[in-house]
Amino acid sequence: MKLIPDNFKKEIEIRIDKIRKEMMEVSSDAVLLGSNSNIYYSSGRFFRGYVYIPLNNEPIWFIIKPTVFDKGDITFIRKPEEIITILEERNYPIPSNLSLELDDLSYSNILRLKNIFPDSKLINGSTILKRARMVKTSWEVEEMRIDGKHHTKVYGEIKNCYKPGMNDLALQIEIEKKLRLEGALGVSRVSGNLMEINLGSVISGDNADNPGPYEFTMGGSGVHPSLPVGANNSKILKGQTVMVDMNGAFNGYQTDMTRVWALGEISDLAIKAHNCSIKILKELEKVSRPGFPVKNMYETADKIVEADGLKEYFMGHKSQVSFIGHGVGIELNEWPVVTPKSKDILKENMTLALEPKFVIPHIGAVGVENTYVVTESGLVNLTEFPEEIQYF
Amino acid sequence: MKLIPDNFKKEIEIRIDKIRKEMMEVSSDAVLLGSNSNIYYSSGRFFRGYVYIPLNNEPIWFIIKPTVFDKGDITFIRKPEEIITILEERNYPIPSNLSLELDDLSYSNILRLKNIFPDSKLINGSTILKRARMVKTSWEVEEMRIDGKHHTKVYGEIKNCYKPGMNDLALQIEIEKKLRLEGALGVSRVSGNLMEINLGSVISGDNADNPGPYEFTMGGSGVHPSLPVGANNSKILKGQTVMVDMNGAFNGYQTDMTRVWALGEISDLAIKAHNCSIKILKELEKVSRPGFPVKNMYETADKIVEADGLKEYFMGHKSQVSFIGHGVGIELNEWPVVTPKSKDILKENMTLALEPKFVIPHIGAVGVENTYVVTESGLVNLTEFPEEIQYF
Repeated sequence: MKLIPDNFKKEIEIRIDKIRKEMMEVSSDAVLLGSNSNIYYSSGRFFRGYVYIPLNNEPIWFIIKPTVFDKGDITFIRKPEEIITILEERNYPIPSNLSLELDDLSYSNILRLKNIFPDSKLINGSTILKRARMVKTSWEVEEMRIDGKHHTKVYGEIKNCYKPGMNDLALQIEIEKKLRLEGALGVSRVSGNLMEINLGSVISGDNADNPGPYEFTMGGSGVHPSLPVGANNSKILKGQTVMVDMNGAFNGYQTDMTRVWALGEISDLAIKAHNCSIKILKELEKVSRPGFPVKNMYETADKIVEADGLKEYFMGHKSQVSFIGHGVGIELNEWPVVTPKSKDILKENMTLALEPKFVIPHIGAVGVENTYVVTESGLVNLTEFPEEIQYF
Repeated sequence: MKLIPDNFKKEIEIRIDKIRKEMMEVSSDAVLLGSNSNIYYSSGRFFRGYVYIPLNNEPIWFIIKPTVFDKGDITFIRKPEEIITILEERNYPIPSNLSLELDDLSYSNILRLKNIFPDSKLINGSTILKRARMVKTSWEVEEMRIDGKHHTKVYGEIKNCYKPGMNDLALQIEIEKKLRLEGALGVSRVSGNLMEINLGSVISGDNADNPGPYEFTMGGSGVHPSLPVGANNSKILKGQTVMVDMNGAFNGYQTDMTRVWALGEISDLAIKAHNCSIKILKELEKVSRPGFPVKNMYETADKIVEADGLKEYFMGHKSQVSFIGHGVGIELNEWPVVTPKSKDILKENMTLALEPKFVIPHIGAVGVENTYVVTESGLVNLTEFPEEIQYF
C-alpha cells in the first residue's frame, strides 16, 4: 500500500509548499516533524515516525511503524538516529537552521532529535506548522464542510435525546452515541495539556458559572476532580438553559458548534443575551474578510455587547475570558485566536470557530458558536443550523 | 473550598513522601510538577498551575486557575515566573538539582521553567514520578478496585449489546454507552504521543492482524487514517472472534481488561491459544510476588507458550511485540513494562495489566487481560469476570 495515494499527492505538495513558505520566513532550511497532528497534516495519515522537509530537496517520510507501506514512497527506520545516515547517503546537506516542534514534543524527544543534528541551530517548527495550518487548503475546507454536515445532522437529533427529568450528563451521553453512530471518531484532538475533553460539553443552569482549569470559553465543574470540565450531573431545571458544545471530528478534521436548548420559559435577559450573540455573529459574518484584522473582530463583538449593556455577562460571569473564537481544523484549538491582542490578519480559507457567549446567573449559558471559512465575500458558515434558543 | 480536603491530607503526605524518596535516589532537592497526571497525583484534582516539592520544606501548590480555592492551602500566581519570588519570600533555598518533567512537558514549557531557575542543574522529574507512581498507595489500590467493579459490571452487559449482523464499531459504540452510563469519564489518560485512543478497542476477525502505529498489543486499522487503531467496521462473522479491550476510567484511575466473544464455533487452535492465555495468567498469579523480577514474568509466559507450540501466534502474528503487560493507574501505560529486558522487581501494591494474547489467522484475536495488584500471596485480580471465550 502506498503511504500517499496518487490522488492525494498534489494535496500533499500544496501543504509542503505552505510549510516551506513559513520556513523561509524564519530562515529555516529543514523541518523534522514527529507530533501526531503534524504527521497527519504532512502525510494524510498517522504513523509512528518522522517527516523531514528540507527547503531544497524532496521530503522524506521516515516510518518506524506500521511497516505496511510500499518502499518506493517512504524510508523505514528503527530509530530516529538513523535519519542522519540516510540524509548523508542521499547527499542531503545537514541543515544550518533545523526546525523541531518545540511546543508539541516533549523536552526529552526534542533533545534526542537535537543530538542527531549537533551542529544545527534550533528553530521552533511548531510555530511554522501552526502558521502553515492556519490557512486551510481547498481540500481541507471540503473535509471540514463534510464534518460540519455530520455535526449539524446530529444536532438535529438533540431534541429527541432529551427525556423529562434528565440530568446534563445523561443528555450528553445520548448525544455522544448519536455522534458516534454518525461517524465521529471518538477523540477530540487538542493542542497542549491545557485542554482535555471527552466528546465535548453539555452545561446546564448554574454549572455554566463554575470556572475550570482549562482554556475553554465555558468551564463547568465536571463529575470528577481528575477531569473538572463540563456536565456535573445537574438536573435540567425549568427556566434554565442547556448549552450543547459537543464535538465533530468525523474525518481527521473538526468543526466546533454550540447551540442552546431551554426547558420552559427563560428570562428576558437570557433571551436578550442570546440574541446579542446572534447579532454579533451576523455582523462578523459580513465584516470578516481577507485583510480584516482579527483583533477588530473582537472589538466588533465587544462594541455590540457594550451597546446592549451586557458586558458583565459576556464570556463568563464570575470568571470572564477575553477571547471569542479560535482557529479549528485537525486540532480543536488552532490559530488564529480571536483576542483583542491578536496581530493576525484574516486570510481566505482560514477556518474559525466564533463563540460569543454569555453566562446569566441562575439561568445558565447562552450564545451560539459556528465554524466559518473566510471567503472574499465574508464568512461562510460550515455549521448551519437554527440559531435561536430551542425548547425541550 | 479547600484544594486538599482534610480527609485527603494524609494520603497526599504519603504520596509526597514517595516522591521525596525517589528524589533522594537521584540527588534532587526539588521537583516542580506541571503535567496533568502528576498535578492530579500530587493534589487529588487537576488544576492549571504547578506543584513544587522541595526535599526539606513544605510543598507549595501554585495555582493559575481556577481561582476557587481557599488561600490558606495554596498560592495563586498568574505565571510561572512568579514562583521564584515566592520561594525567596519564604526563605526556600534555590534548588541545586531541580527536577522537571522532561518526558511529559513540551520543550518550550521546560525551557520556560528552566529559565526561572538558571543556576539549577536539571534532572528528569518524569522518571521520579513514574517510579513513585509505580507502587500504589492503599488508597489508590482501593480506587482501582472500585474502578474494576464498574468495569466488570459493564462487561456483564456486553452480550446484550450484540445484535445479529452487527459490525465491530457498532458493538463498540453500544459498549461505550454502557461504560458512560456506569460512570466512565469518557477519556483514557495515556502517557506520550504513541498512544491515542477513544474509549478502547473492539477488534473482530482479520482486523486483529492489521498492525498499527501505536504501542498497543493489538493494532486494528481503525475507520480513518487519522486514528488508525481498533475497530474497522468489519462485520462480525461466524467462526471468528471479537476481542473487547474497552476502557474503565471511572474515578481518575483505570483498570485494563480484555475478554473474547465469538460468533458460532471457532477453531480448536483458537480455543487452545485462548486457554493458553488463561494458563499463563493462572501461573503468573501464583509466582508473581514481591521480589520476583518482572522479566521472569515474561519468561514464565514465554515458556508456557513454547510448550504449547503457539509461538508464531503470540502477541501478534504478522507483527509481534515482546511485552505481555504494563503498569496501570492514573495513566493506561505506567511502569513497570513486562518485557524480557525489564530490570524492575515486583513490589507490594504495584498494579499491573497482564495481557498474553494471540492472533490466529482468519479467526481473530484471543486471550485475556486482567488488572492485578501485587500482594504478599501473589496477584489479586481487580477485574474478576469469566475468562473463557463467551458466545454471542
